[in-house]
Amino acid sequence: MQSDPELDRLRGSIDNLDAAIVCLLAERFKITQRVGVLKKERGLKAADPDREVQQIARLRQLAASSGMDPEFAEKLLGFIVAEVVRQHEAIAAA
Amino acid sequence: MQSDPELDRLRGSIDNLDAAIVCLLAERFKITQRVGVLKKERGLKAADPDREVQQIARLRQLAASSGMDPEFAEKLLGFIVAEVVRQHEAIAAA
Repeated sequence: MQSDPELDRLRGSIDNLDAAIVCLLAERFKITQRVGVLKKERGLKAADPDREVQQIARLRQLAASSGMDPEFAEKLLGFIVAEVVRQHEAIAAA
Repeated sequence: MQSDPELDRLRGSIDNLDAAIVCLLAERFKITQRVGVLKKERGLKAADPDREVQQIARLRQLAASSGMDPEFAEKLLGFIVAEVVRQHEAIAAA
């Protein structure tokens, strides 16, 4: 393992941010699971392309204004949404 | 677009969490870019497999304790680290 005092300090900050990101994502999945149950109760489809188009546009703008690559933000959302849809399909099938 | 008062409320929470996650990720990339510059200055390799093994173990544990699928957390870290390594290789080549 590569070691260096400044590298260690930066990695400590990365680890703190990762812990915060994991907690926020866990909360996000709790809410999307509730959305999945609601969609099943209401007979709505698991995927919602219009909502996804809005989310992509909003996240690309947020990414750009916070100095992150909008392409990466869009790919990341796709990655998370694929997991959400997988969970919603499991809820719908249950 | 599917609409329903409770669905709209839940989606508002998802949007708030997404904004927070994007900001934290943007900060994470700022730090990993600094790590990339530091690695170039010190002549260290872009990828660090030992560090990645530690990060995976830590994030799987964090995910499990916050109610998130550890498999998803590991896949997500892989997705983010691939982007970081891509950025580090660009810094090293610059």
